[in-house]
Amino acid sequence: MKTIITADVSQVTPRHRMVTMQNFLAIDAGGTSTRAVFLDASGQCLGYGTAGGGNPVSRGFEPALDALVGASKKALGGGVQLLAGTLVAMAGASLELPTHLFRERFITLGLTGNVVIESDLLAAFYSGSYQDNGSALIAGTGAVGARISASRLAAVADGTGWLLGDEGSGFWLGRQVARAVAAALDGRGAPTALTELVLADLGITLDPSQRTQGRLRAQQQLIRKVYESSAIELSRFAPLVFAVAQDPVATDIIERAADALARTLLAVAPGAGEPLVFGGSVLTKGGTVAAAVAARLLESTPPILVHDGVAGAAVLVLKRHGVVVDAAVFARIQESLAALRDERI
Amino acid sequence: MKTIITADVSQVTPRHRMVTMQNFLAIDAGGTSTRAVFLDASGQCLGYGTAGGGNPVSRGFEPALDALVGASKKALGGGVQLLAGTLVAMAGASLELPTHLFRERFITLGLTGNVVIESDLLAAFYSGSYQDNGSALIAGTGAVGARISASRLAAVADGTGWLLGDEGSGFWLGRQVARAVAAALDGRGAPTALTELVLADLGITLDPSQRTQGRLRAQQQLIRKVYESSAIELSRFAPLVFAVAQDPVATDIIERAADALARTLLAVAPGAGEPLVFGGSVLTKGGTVAAAVAARLLESTPPILVHDGVAGAAVLVLKRHGVVVDAAVFARIQESLAALRDERI
Repeated sequence: MKTIITADVSQVTPRHRMVTMQNFLAIDAGGTSTRAVFLDASGQCLGYGTAGGGNPVSRGFEPALDALVGASKKALGGGVQLLAGTLVAMAGASLELPTHLFRERFITLGLTGNVVIESDLLAAFYSGSYQDNGSALIAGTGAVGARISASRLAAVADGTGWLLGDEGSGFWLGRQVARAVAAALDGRGAPTALTELVLADLGITLDPSQRTQGRLRAQQQLIRKVYESSAIELSRFAPLVFAVAQDPVATDIIERAADALARTLLAVAPGAGEPLVFGGSVLTKGGTVAAAVAARLLESTPPILVHDGVAGAAVLVLKRHGVVVDAAVFARIQESLAALRDERI
Repeated sequence: MKTIITADVSQVTPRHRMVTMQNFLAIDAGGTSTRAVFLDASGQCLGYGTAGGGNPVSRGFEPALDALVGASKKALGGGVQLLAGTLVAMAGASLELPTHLFRERFITLGLTGNVVIESDLLAAFYSGSYQDNGSALIAGTGAVGARISASRLAAVADGTGWLLGDEGSGFWLGRQVARAVAAALDGRGAPTALTELVLADLGITLDPSQRTQGRLRAQQQLIRKVYESSAIELSRFAPLVFAVAQDPVATDIIERAADALARTLLAVAPGAGEPLVFGGSVLTKGGTVAAAVAARLLESTPPILVHDGVAGAAVLVLKRHGVVVDAAVFARIQESLAALRDERI
């Protein structure tokens, strides 16, 4: 694919670009929110918009399309725009969906140009780097590692979901917190400061004298409350692990998360000296886990932290249309995008 | 409670029993099947019947009642019987249900006498012992430990369900197998003979050259198949861990299951020299896990293996009505029940 990009680039000479500056639309479609940016081939971001979750797997196809279109309209300022191309970055499971349905919906809006879907992992990586070789580790609700080679996904590890893996993710952390509390309440595990936090969150009072059928009443209530909600709700307990950082049980959970995430990253064999991008709230908020993962890597490339994939989607849409994204273009994307986002606050 | 039982016992003198030999109904209501036995106060089992799942929480109230009544009718031989009492053994979560609904339903059948509900843990324990102090460790789909004191549950550990615990259970084992295979496929975990077994079970062919978006196609298919089914379906992979016992990954899973189960049992502080009952397929089939758990206990009380709680429900219904269950009565229950079950084959 690298040779094709090189060939495309040759068509976009500086003079050509000046005469017919092309415009692009880049969309970062996440599970809970969607971000779209309208930009030109120089990397200048001209409009920005957001909407709700845009993942067709978790949200359903039509609501996801609505979110994509909603964010795009805001980014485009409401007008019909001549577009050289649109790129949608989505989680891996969405990549086998019928992409022509996306294209048809965008055409009915008067949007022109082709629509391509790319992995959200690539978008996350390119939010932190414009180079075409490197690695990314993302730990949000899920957890996944990827090695990028010649601008494509060369290897992916984990990202196998809450039942099979996503080790070190927000769900994983939240579940470990709940398990540690359940174990502390019946003596299988060590006492932990997490117990008070989890029980308070659920409105449960701990009275060591209250037992039913040999079980502490507080544990019985914990069990009932947890199974009343969907499994994924356990993610809400993840932040508690950082609230009691001196607690040995909490520290152990953080250490095991870092072990798992380092294993996930090392499984994709990140290249020495290549950029390493960290994304997702578990790695970008607080820094405890990110530092613990970095400490486990033999190479000490300092990781670049990214908060979402919208800048990377912008980088990708340009690259896929043969525009060379160098340090200057990359900086222009980041700065003009940040300015547009600041305007919205 | 022990004093009350002693008081009751005084009313049931041998002479009294001979004149008005009372009859009882004992039901072991499990998640997937229900067993009922009709017996007299001497422990002689007179009828036996089975039906589908009788747990109101997992099956719904009406279907569970249908199963209880269905198994009971078979045990009673279809006729209306004068009963001194009925006892239903059920999982802990069912114990807060409106028991009068059970009673009303049994009365409409012409069954007389009171209906009490007791924990399935007590029934499992009494399937292996007639003594009133001891411990039980059950590892089927779930996993739970209990200490019985003066014929009541004094302490319970784990049994917190598939999300919060049940460590070392069938679900836990099956999930560890699936996780190990997912990890082996992307290099996070060691290669394992479990991979071939799990992929064959799911009809997936492993071709190391086939990748999509940086991920092995076989892993992508594994992810899809696992999330198409309900989480609890992962239990089906549990037996595979015993099929490749020489495999280091499988051995590690078995060792961790034994660690967890031993921790669960030790958390209830089993009394030295008291009977220890093991139940549930993980502990009773094959013997690998049972031996590994026993090896972790300081005391080497040889565990008594039980296959269900129906004999224990029979022991319990007699005890709760003041009948002294001694070695002779216990043996009579076991032998007459076994004979009735053999008839049915």
